Amino acid sequence: MQILDGQLVSRTIKDRLKIDVAALVADGKKIPHLAAVLVGNNGASETYVAAKVKACAEIGFKSTMVRMEETTSESKLLAVIEDLNKNMDVDGILVQLPLPAHISDERVILAIDPSKDVDGFHPVNVGKLVLGTPSFISATPHGIMLLLEHYKIDTAGKRAAVLGRSNIVGRPMSILLSANTLPGNCTVTLCHSQTRHLKEITSTSDLIVSARGRPEFLKADMVKEGAVIIDVGITRVADASKKSGFALKGDVDFGAVAPKSSFITPVPGGVGPMTIAALMKNTFAAMKHKHG
Amino acid sequence: MQILDGQLVSRTIKDRLKIDVAALVADGKKIPHLAAVLVGNNGASETYVAAKVKACAEIGFKSTMVRMEETTSESKLLAVIEDLNKNMDVDGILVQLPLPAHISDERVILAIDPSKDVDGFHPVNVGKLVLGTPSFISATPHGIMLLLEHYKIDTAGKRAAVLGRSNIVGRPMSILLSANTLPGNCTVTLCHSQTRHLKEITSTSDLIVSARGRPEFLKADMVKEGAVIIDVGITRVADASKKSGFALKGDVDFGAVAPKSSFITPVPGGVGPMTIAALMKNTFAAMKHKHG
Repeated sequence: MQILDGQLVSRTIKDRLKIDVAALVADGKKIPHLAAVLVGNNGASETYVAAKVKACAEIGFKSTMVRMEETTSESKLLAVIEDLNKNMDVDGILVQLPLPAHISDERVILAIDPSKDVDGFHPVNVGKLVLGTPSFISATPHGIMLLLEHYKIDTAGKRAAVLGRSNIVGRPMSILLSANTLPGNCTVTLCHSQTRHLKEITSTSDLIVSARGRPEFLKADMVKEGAVIIDVGITRVADASKKSGFALKGDVDFGAVAPKSSFITPVPGGVGPMTIAALMKNTFAAMKHKHG
Repeated sequence: MQILDGQLVSRTIKDRLKIDVAALVADGKKIPHLAAVLVGNNGASETYVAAKVKACAEIGFKSTMVRMEETTSESKLLAVIEDLNKNMDVDGILVQLPLPAHISDERVILAIDPSKDVDGFHPVNVGKLVLGTPSFISATPHGIMLLLEHYKIDTAGKRAAVLGRSNIVGRPMSILLSANTLPGNCTVTLCHSQTRHLKEITSTSDLIVSARGRPEFLKADMVKEGAVIIDVGITRVADASKKSGFALKGDVDFGAVAPKSSFITPVPGGVGPMTIAALMKNTFAAMKHKHG
């Protein structure tokens, strides 16, 4: 069994980007600039955005954080996005989800210039992903593909189960894994809330990507010997022994599943850091695309 | 076993559209207008485009057919598309594929105004399909969904195998069947050229959509008792007993598989006519969207 060390691979990718940015600076060229918009004060969202801004600083990207009140109107948010679209210095725009209930995620995502949509959520970017001409692949699935690539995991012809069909993780993951690419070429079964006989599917899969958000539900008896396990779940579970009062748990019963697996991501330190690395790569690519 | 009669359902849909068009005419309103572009003289393409133009005539849609030489340049084709985009009377545009090798399918598809892309091939329409906010669903998968809907086939929680991952059929089909919709909510396994143990997958599936284009490869021993069989394959096979010198064969060994199935599409007369009905529905919707 080998740990898929997202922390390490993410670090490697960010170090590479740091060198690339240093070269841009040396040549007096434009450096990548990510703008993050955060509406309201959701604790998890604060943490995620802070981690993205911190990654920009580490690499040497410019970043702008736009904070808006929980009660801000949709039209105000759309106006902010329009300004960022027009701002020639901004290469990538991300609006941290979820948004307050009175704002339409869909309209907001549609408002972002697709060429700056480093989260890869705009329909045109999702469509290009399906068609095999991707511009920006959304960060979590992209990060997982980078992780599989880094560890040279053989995926061609393998059976993969993707658990969860969200637009942000499961759905694009199933598309990427089944595409005629490397990594890729898996025979993918996409599972969701209506799926029956889940165990039958997971226990015949060579690769499992779980994005259900149900702490430790994937048990050892649901997993084939030698499977590759990618755990996207991250749930706060009450834990009195921790100072924070909670522990972060993945979808996988790690202690029992790890010994059966060939490769496995830990939580935390697996998929999470890869997500940020992927976002940074997208931001760099957005700048490159526009400014050569 | 029941035949899924695409001819009949297509007729029903077209009759409904005919009534709707008659109402538009009676009210002095704009009637839907489909423009089809055919480059070169590919025999199958000629047949398909002719069938689409004929369907327009039956329903009462206006249609325009633009024929271009096999040797026409990409820029000339793009100019024709631009004119059709600008033409306020044209509601739907389809460019029959495949195009000659010197023309990029991708650039041509990108040139079509997404609001007139009744084939549903433009990335923005593919993206919306994935995100569950579809405008135009490409004709073959859309036709299959209409067929399942017409026969009220229970798909929720069922296991489905989609054979073939093309952008036109297999990939969108897998997305539609696994979406949280009715029909839909299947647990879908997408199979392709790299898939091993195909029989294992098909024989545990409640629904099989085959779009491989390999005549009669799906045999009775690959199919579960009571499965729903959708045959998208259509291949010309030499047949001296026919005046044309060939017979049309689906992917399914119909004679042997039909008795085991609960529902099955014949070839011809199954998916083919539904494809045209779906295109007509898209064209009507395109007109409605613009002209109320």
